[in-house]
Amino acid sequence: MQQLKDRIKKDGVVIGNDVLKVDCFLNHQIDPMLMDSIGAEFHRLFSDQKIDRVLTIEASGIAAAVMTAKYFGCPLVFAKKSRTVNQSANVYTSKAFSFTHKTENTVTVSKEYIHAGENVLIIDDFLANGCALRALRDIVIQAGAIPVGAGIIIEKAFQNGGAELRAEGLRIESLARVKSMSETDGIEFI
Amino acid sequence: MQQLKDRIKKDGVVIGNDVLKVDCFLNHQIDPMLMDSIGAEFHRLFSDQKIDRVLTIEASGIAAAVMTAKYFGCPLVFAKKSRTVNQSANVYTSKAFSFTHKTENTVTVSKEYIHAGENVLIIDDFLANGCALRALRDIVIQAGAIPVGAGIIIEKAFQNGGAELRAEGLRIESLARVKSMSETDGIEFI
Repeated sequence: MQQLKDRIKKDGVVIGNDVLKVDCFLNHQIDPMLMDSIGAEFHRLFSDQKIDRVLTIEASGIAAAVMTAKYFGCPLVFAKKSRTVNQSANVYTSKAFSFTHKTENTVTVSKEYIHAGENVLIIDDFLANGCALRALRDIVIQAGAIPVGAGIIIEKAFQNGGAELRAEGLRIESLARVKSMSETDGIEFI
Repeated sequence: MQQLKDRIKKDGVVIGNDVLKVDCFLNHQIDPMLMDSIGAEFHRLFSDQKIDRVLTIEASGIAAAVMTAKYFGCPLVFAKKSRTVNQSANVYTSKAFSFTHKTENTVTVSKEYIHAGENVLIIDDFLANGCALRALRDIVIQAGAIPVGAGIIIEKAFQNGGAELRAEGLRIESLARVKSMSETDGIEFI
């Protein structure tokens, strides 16, 4: 998605060789017009599938995911993160280690809001090592629903999550795939 | 907003006399078409003001706030909640006690994303005792910006936050104002 790549080049800040800060349009300040375009693009990419539900994880994924769900005319569910284990029988849970925050989170979704047999599209802002995406896919499978694909805004393709999950059969559509990045040489896309 | 009140009556679950669970369209599962209508309504209500920026707080406020910001054609910023104090000189911070979770959160917004003199519209999903809204207004004022108003999806008008903040001069537009509620008698709106 050229509009997104241009924006990353213009406003993304590379720290070291693996942190890409896009706080100014995605993770803290949000450009709603760009989120709308991203939602339209995910709708176009997955238009060959019947989508019953969009699933994302709080908090940065919500803005793009709500736009995507609007284009599909289906509900959005956002998984909740907590550092305590929710033992309720009414939720699906999975674990996700956050390399950004160096913490293990428990990811939960109420059993009321994913149903067996549904086609679920997962949306997330970043894909790097794939921990969050694995946890979301795991919850979809626990519910007996079908993870028909994942729409990712920015994939750090130099980390192994995308390659591993594609090898496991998950369809992943990433709007910007970063091949390499550094403070000196900037960002190169695939 | 009649569409919202009807939805609350239909799908809201009252627990005791003060908890209103709207997990199925607002706080966990989200109805994107309703969020779009809510964004349009906040735009209509505050169309007499020039809005430079929408401010909300993670996570449940983001969906409605991004739609609102899209109608205004301005950026959205979402404040972050954490239980640890972020001592960085680069953020505005304020405290908000969560009665729901019985915890005190530190609310932070990067200084990069609110500027002196800007007209800021605050959007949040619930207004009860007003703690979160006070923290957001406090951050706007710290930045030297103008809190031109607050758009609230559901106000529990039987709690004191709305009355107190209006008495302090904050303009609040609530789309549904709950006068009283109980498990037996249901929900009554003002």
